[in-house]
Amino acid sequence: MRGVSIIGIGMTPFGSSSESIISLARNACELSLKDASIDRSKIDAFYLGNFAGESFSGQNHLAPLISNVLGLDSIPCTRVEGACASGGLALRQGIMAIKSGEADIALVCGVEKMTTVNNERVNSILSSAGDIFQENPLEISFPSLFAFITQRYLYENKITREQLSSIPVKNHSNGILNEKAHIRKKITEREVVNARQISGPIGLLDCSPVSDGSAAIILCCSKLASDLYSEPISILASTQSSDFVSTIEKDSIVGFEATKKASNYAFDISGLERSDIDVVELHDCFTIAEPIALEDMGFFKKGEGWKGILDGVTLLGGSMPVNTSGGLKSKGHPVGATGIAQIYELVLQLRNRAGKRQVPGARYALSQNMGGVGATSTVHILGKME
Amino acid sequence: MRGVSIIGIGMTPFGSSSESIISLARNACELSLKDASIDRSKIDAFYLGNFAGESFSGQNHLAPLISNVLGLDSIPCTRVEGACASGGLALRQGIMAIKSGEADIALVCGVEKMTTVNNERVNSILSSAGDIFQENPLEISFPSLFAFITQRYLYENKITREQLSSIPVKNHSNGILNEKAHIRKKITEREVVNARQISGPIGLLDCSPVSDGSAAIILCCSKLASDLYSEPISILASTQSSDFVSTIEKDSIVGFEATKKASNYAFDISGLERSDIDVVELHDCFTIAEPIALEDMGFFKKGEGWKGILDGVTLLGGSMPVNTSGGLKSKGHPVGATGIAQIYELVLQLRNRAGKRQVPGARYALSQNMGGVGATSTVHILGKME
Repeated sequence: MRGVSIIGIGMTPFGSSSESIISLARNACELSLKDASIDRSKIDAFYLGNFAGESFSGQNHLAPLISNVLGLDSIPCTRVEGACASGGLALRQGIMAIKSGEADIALVCGVEKMTTVNNERVNSILSSAGDIFQENPLEISFPSLFAFITQRYLYENKITREQLSSIPVKNHSNGILNEKAHIRKKITEREVVNARQISGPIGLLDCSPVSDGSAAIILCCSKLASDLYSEPISILASTQSSDFVSTIEKDSIVGFEATKKASNYAFDISGLERSDIDVVELHDCFTIAEPIALEDMGFFKKGEGWKGILDGVTLLGGSMPVNTSGGLKSKGHPVGATGIAQIYELVLQLRNRAGKRQVPGARYALSQNMGGVGATSTVHILGKME
Repeated sequence: MRGVSIIGIGMTPFGSSSESIISLARNACELSLKDASIDRSKIDAFYLGNFAGESFSGQNHLAPLISNVLGLDSIPCTRVEGACASGGLALRQGIMAIKSGEADIALVCGVEKMTTVNNERVNSILSSAGDIFQENPLEISFPSLFAFITQRYLYENKITREQLSSIPVKNHSNGILNEKAHIRKKITEREVVNARQISGPIGLLDCSPVSDGSAAIILCCSKLASDLYSEPISILASTQSSDFVSTIEKDSIVGFEATKKASNYAFDISGLERSDIDVVELHDCFTIAEPIALEDMGFFKKGEGWKGILDGVTLLGGSMPVNTSGGLKSKGHPVGATGIAQIYELVLQLRNRAGKRQVPGARYALSQNMGGVGATSTVHILGKME
């Protein structure tokens, strides 16, 4: 089977933007083409991860529209949607297009333009990622669902809300070093605990912001990659798993089966151990999602993911820094872009170009992108080419 | 590269349904599983073609939701969107999943539930398949765009509106023989011409109806297919091309480059000639789309696609019947389901199980599915396995 490598990356700043969804995507794609130094006529397929352009911008059929402004001539253009994992899913389809021989080089973009509507409408649109038939009648928003999860996590592990507050502090501290991050501001644990309450124990500083933005990467059949680019990064595993969309149907809400299965499978495929991973980008849509993902992926024992940061493991300078980009919390979370922006950060790290947030000597990196409350999870493992 | 075959098909009746989008999809998928006589635990991946569940039903993230009700355990579940070609695109991703070795068996479903909203809202939602930035300010609806195309076609080819009216008559005549068709009613050429005008020369009987429905197929690696199923159908080509979404940017509106390129490529890959094709399902969203698609795919010379039916070629009993299912016009057009429902019909034909609308001895079949005004086009060629 053909191997797949990354030969180009691009990303817009995340935040509130005056640009349209199409301009945002075009800008990220143009940066990736420039980074790869390849002519756009070499692109064989275009995949777009987008969650809700239909509601945020009134526009579907976005993949060929973005291809049109990029001048990609008549190639297959396909949009993929899986809630907040739309980017990770689009990446997987791009990889399969190359592995199957349908394409030698593929452009994969993720984009979301969310600031077109007010916050109430944002919450309503985000609810379409949950099970509207079972959950909407209960009027449970995503912050409320993650508040439930937080409370159960505190209860099961006999810890206090304060013991989670260093997680967003770390992610903001990293985000300050990322010039493309949405919220570049130092915060303290005291501020996290005392922030305006959104739902239950979740405060404003536990929530990723509403952002506009786009990220893009260029995938290439590995055989061609080193001819085209001096520093290709190999994709060592690309996995995806699913679970119940409705939290009501899950046996446990403090662990997500889809993340467990996708990560186990990714380690099987790559032949790597957890201890081989040098840097991780994971889906911290809310504070609690970070320790749960670390446990689900086997980096910490169940119930102990929150300790990782206290022991310094996940801090910049620790043995396995997590969310060096600032994570969804500080970098921002333009939904469809997130899964690709994670790869952007990891490629910077593996190229040794992450500046002040560089993880020294990083060779293997892992990303985890989640849709809904653990209903969809993708895991990618990247490595420097030998 | 691995070959891909079809080992199961299922379809709900098309029309106005009291069932939810999830029930519709479940029903089609269950029928396909039963048809294939395989246990659902053998399904490795699920792909869903859906255009606008977000607006019609307030529900995104539909792929895992449908997988949940089907009891497909934790497999990758991915929704694909490309306007009215969403079904064709989902099929292509399922094929690539198998060709790439990601899956041995994949379930591909297309679904749309459109009767949840009134007709004005349907038109507004359908407009999201066009270029809202360039076309919406002009308030051009899809019927108006196809009315422009019809007028130009009449002008270029020096024919009258009456000379196109036998096309929907044929499709209704076929649809009467299809128990799953939405509108099973004989119509006359006089009725077509005298029908209530929708836009310019386009009347009500030139438009495909607003329908609910779902179709599903089961794909299998060809090496395994004949062990699992006695009558597998081979996928000989699966191609996709794109063009400008905005009609304003096209050099010609009476031919669609995406259809031309996708079909040329499909014939190249399959090694077949146009004359080898025994039966065609094509995207007749409006009457004019049928002769244009026949010309674009090289079955007739430019400007002569309308003659096919008058010469009897495309009629049931002709040398290459077109839209034996009734086409979008009579069978119905639940947007995301259409590309898969076309395959459903062609597999029936190749299995020699199409009843009164059977094309005798059909060995090779072709489907064409289009998104927007020719912005996305997919072509699939199917054949009986030797």
